[in-house]
Amino acid sequence: MSFRFHLQATDGAARTGRIETPRGEIRTPAFMPVGTAGTVKAMMPESVAATGADILLGNTYHLMLRPGAERVARLGGLHSFMNWERPILTDSGGFQVMSLAGLRKLTEEGVTFQSHIDGSKHLLSPETSMEIQRQLGSDIVMCFDECPALPADEATVKRSMELSMRWAQRSRDAFGDRPAHALFGIQQGGVTEELRGESAEALTAIGFEGYAIGGLAVGEGQEAMFGVLDYAPGMLPQDKPRYLMGVGKPDDIVGAVKRGVDMMDCVLPSRSGRTGQAWTRRGQVNLRNARHADDPRPLDEACGCPACRNYSRAYLHHVVRAGEMIGGMLLTWHNLHYYQELMAGMRRAIAEGSFEAWEAAFHAGRAEGDIERL
Amino acid sequence: MSFRFHLQATDGAARTGRIETPRGEIRTPAFMPVGTAGTVKAMMPESVAATGADILLGNTYHLMLRPGAERVARLGGLHSFMNWERPILTDSGGFQVMSLAGLRKLTEEGVTFQSHIDGSKHLLSPETSMEIQRQLGSDIVMCFDECPALPADEATVKRSMELSMRWAQRSRDAFGDRPAHALFGIQQGGVTEELRGESAEALTAIGFEGYAIGGLAVGEGQEAMFGVLDYAPGMLPQDKPRYLMGVGKPDDIVGAVKRGVDMMDCVLPSRSGRTGQAWTRRGQVNLRNARHADDPRPLDEACGCPACRNYSRAYLHHVVRAGEMIGGMLLTWHNLHYYQELMAGMRRAIAEGSFEAWEAAFHAGRAEGDIERL
Ligand SMILES: [Zn+2]
Ligand SMILES: [Zn+2]
Repeated sequence: MSFRFHLQATDGAARTGRIETPRGEIRTPAFMPVGTAGTVKAMMPESVAATGADILLGNTYHLMLRPGAERVARLGGLHSFMNWERPILTDSGGFQVMSLAGLRKLTEEGVTFQSHIDGSKHLLSPETSMEIQRQLGSDIVMCFDECPALPADEATVKRSMELSMRWAQRSRDAFGDRPAHALFGIQQGGVTEELRGESAEALTAIGFEGYAIGGLAVGEGQEAMFGVLDYAPGMLPQDKPRYLMGVGKPDDIVGAVKRGVDMMDCVLPSRSGRTGQAWTRRGQVNLRNARHADDPRPLDEACGCPACRNYSRAYLHHVVRAGEMIGGMLLTWHNLHYYQELMAGMRRAIAEGSFEAWEAAFHAGRAEGDIERL
Repeated sequence: MSFRFHLQATDGAARTGRIETPRGEIRTPAFMPVGTAGTVKAMMPESVAATGADILLGNTYHLMLRPGAERVARLGGLHSFMNWERPILTDSGGFQVMSLAGLRKLTEEGVTFQSHIDGSKHLLSPETSMEIQRQLGSDIVMCFDECPALPADEATVKRSMELSMRWAQRSRDAFGDRPAHALFGIQQGGVTEELRGESAEALTAIGFEGYAIGGLAVGEGQEAMFGVLDYAPGMLPQDKPRYLMGVGKPDDIVGAVKRGVDMMDCVLPSRSGRTGQAWTRRGQVNLRNARHADDPRPLDEACGCPACRNYSRAYLHHVVRAGEMIGGMLLTWHNLHYYQELMAGMRRAIAEGSFEAWEAAFHAGRAEGDIERL
């Protein structure tokens, strides 16, 4: 069985569908929890699946440094290594080299850098990134690209986008013939419509199984991001999934889906969970806050996750304050559950043609704010 | 339904039976995982139950300081607070005041001390300890006692034991009439047989639902501890459960059961799990060790826990080295599972009258040592 995308319904620019892969179906719009180093932090993989996630994201940069992609390959690949038999998407490593590694040097060939863990020297290029992602065994492989931090002047953005397009061709060539797997191209071009158009054209000419919108969620703000999303998804092929990388907060996600995005990933729900922050239908809740210390009510009475079914806000407050691991475990579970509920709600609404009403209810819930203090 | 102990079989000094409580049965010999501050660290309570634990231990000292016993009472008690509806035993707080609190002052009345968390001042006495354990709602309440660190001269041990016996009477008086709950006396007397005898006599005269052997596992070594256990359990009533506090490593536990102990608790399996240490049929395994980095085999091929069923040693090594929470989660689960398997094995062997053969196999497995390096 090969990799296929079926678009099932649209509502405005919003789309719902499914991606078929040999490892199972991905319902879109899909949110991918981030399993950086072979684990979604604070979660057992069966619990991640229980939240409704169809696919995880793994980080090439982290995994190539530790435990090492060749080692993962010898051990049977990332799926079996981390006990997640459903689809995995891996990023190319390019973004994290720029944000985490020391002593980077960028050339036409690729990026040489030092590991932030042990200082060892490495090269990431389109060819090595394809090889590492093959060793990991990921189902959806991302092109190796370059992403300049915003704000950047247009000449810099253009030069970088053109380099990324040459790297996209090299990634496609190096990926080879792997019908059960997918290679996604990554559109660049910053916040400049013309450059986004040139990038989309270059990628479409090469041809990919899916297309990512890269270079956003890097500090430009929601308004600028939505500005790009007003035109960028429409530049990409209708019949292929569109993936917005590294997004985002719940309202970012809803705005992106509304504008035609099919897939997203973000560390936010899991990272927030480990610092006592919860995302709910009524906005963000900080469980560290003393107002919860005596509150016997669940975090969200309508949520079916274990944190909300079995514990009070008072308990969550206590374990977060005491630094107990179960605080991070329960809040991560809740946040991932909430994110998947959000995606499921949007998929239903798009299929029914009621996305606008769904979105209004989403914003109304958040406008209400958290439940009154007792 | 009230608290009752049924002795079902003996094999030499070893005993097996069950304790009936309104919250369910406790199969003895029983190992109680420690849920210090309202959580068995790194575990969901349903996972603790899945390892086979019938009862947890909660720490009065920690819980009285944070979140506070009155608060726990207002929230419906510790069981509901921490989502553990089976039996809970709470210690009296005495031991941890001596090991954790600052500025302690011991008088006939009790111990005044400063919280190690916020420096606030508190009094623990037989009366306040009974009240706090009542507020927590624990099923098995421990007498408030004093436990001097060993080595101590005999006069100090005798003075301390006599104080503890006066406190035992005050604990009994303050406990009141609570038929669904149990109060356990605590034998003291260090490593001196005569003092252990006097203590047992004093406790038996007062009368308790169970009897603990206190003042051991405080640095005296296994030989000295077994020396005391050769006579101490036999000094206590046959028809009541006997609880050895704070023990221990697997071989300590087996030696204690062999000598007539029915219940034990220890932080070791959970604490070890968070530092990459595993306990198996073949002894201790340090998952941080580089020998595991490429090892595709499970930690213990015969173990049914998730860490052994779903992951390789290489994965466990990776997540322990990377400091990922799932390392502590999986190894804690394995260790608690192994401890409960140990207890279940001993219960079966005692019931069948084959404890000696079981014990020989236990020691033979450990003598083999860990599986050969690949
Ligand atoms: Zn929830
Ligand atoms: Zn195991």
